[in-house]
Amino acid sequence: MSKVTEVEKIMDANDQVAGLIRDKLTAKKVFAINLMASPGAGKTTFILRTIQELSSRLKIGVIEGDTAPVTIDADKITAAGMPAVQINTGGECHLDAMMMNSGIEQLPLDDLDLIIVENVGNLICPAAFNLGTHANVLIASIPEGDDKPYKYPNIYRGIQCLVLNKTDLLPYVDFNLDYFKQGIRMLNPTADILPLSSKTGEGMDAWLAWLRARIGEKKHATK
Amino acid sequence: MSKVTEVEKIMDANDQVAGLIRDKLTAKKVFAINLMASPGAGKTTFILRTIQELSSRLKIGVIEGDTAPVTIDADKITAAGMPAVQINTGGECHLDAMMMNSGIEQLPLDDLDLIIVENVGNLICPAAFNLGTHANVLIASIPEGDDKPYKYPNIYRGIQCLVLNKTDLLPYVDFNLDYFKQGIRMLNPTADILPLSSKTGEGMDAWLAWLRARIGEKKHATK
Repeated sequence: MSKVTEVEKIMDANDQVAGLIRDKLTAKKVFAINLMASPGAGKTTFILRTIQELSSRLKIGVIEGDTAPVTIDADKITAAGMPAVQINTGGECHLDAMMMNSGIEQLPLDDLDLIIVENVGNLICPAAFNLGTHANVLIASIPEGDDKPYKYPNIYRGIQCLVLNKTDLLPYVDFNLDYFKQGIRMLNPTADILPLSSKTGEGMDAWLAWLRARIGEKKHATK
Repeated sequence: MSKVTEVEKIMDANDQVAGLIRDKLTAKKVFAINLMASPGAGKTTFILRTIQELSSRLKIGVIEGDTAPVTIDADKITAAGMPAVQINTGGECHLDAMMMNSGIEQLPLDDLDLIIVENVGNLICPAAFNLGTHANVLIASIPEGDDKPYKYPNIYRGIQCLVLNKTDLLPYVDFNLDYFKQGIRMLNPTADILPLSSKTGEGMDAWLAWLRARIGEKKHATK
């Protein structure tokens, strides 16, 4: 079998599993996002801040994708009072739908409103694999620089929301917001672009509104 | 043929090409480094600063690995007066020895003292591929956070030098240098750890000394 055919078969199987996952989550009224970013863009702090802001109203589960068997991030989520599952990719640079399926099987879906999947930190590989989530969200961060959409275009094409994190560092870093936005618009005319700081909380309201507009809150939400 | 056997054959071919590249570069008295980092750690600015500091004494060639056909980085190197070759990986998340070989064939090896290979921005895939360079250098940066050695261990294992860039941002970011160093030491007891700022130039002297100690300067170096 040729290499191309093998790759096509793998992607086809991945998409089939992803489709089944999405159907299952939709039936359970669980909204799921695939959160992607470069290493160090602040994914875990962003998730923790999101949990902190929403935990009185929504039940949130987290799937942590890591290339190494470390539970640093999953431990932080559990300490914040939400169920977390760690998936060790065994060195692979992305999660795939089969790993995602194993993740959701370990979460109490009937109790959840939202699943946040923290993909492996990487701007290349995660773009190619559909996980069966309802939205792809990419976190970029100010210190990474304003040229990233030009250099890693594929990951910008498939997202519904771009979170631009670490705006608190804007005074100390050269970052041209117009150039950055222009790069995204060339690739993706419709994605929402939300500048914010997970550290100070500035701009988080717009993100929480984005999320709430997409989540079907379940009846057990008490407030 | 099983998947494992195929992967082994690919890695074996890569290592053979890498060995030939290293022999060729050594014979030409060209020292080569494989520079790896996360997207946005400041690789290109670091290379430009290195060129600026050494250009009166050494001739430096640069191979730019990119996943997209953009020449942003290669153009900056050329503007700095040094030969640069861009290698588009066609979406792949790393350079391999075959791409490296195509890169050095486009550089004037007889005139060069040093080749800097700017690998694709990524902390996972580049770790697995020997390029035939003489040293692996990893750039980490302060805003990426102090937990990266724990989360991306493989790339820390194979390096001879760790550059910790963007120290100018230390006052604005939570970063525990001891925790970071401890993570590296668990994986790699001998790599040199050099904190610096490519932006302000602070700490660059130690890096230039590290590099000079390893480069066989050619006779045409005039100063």
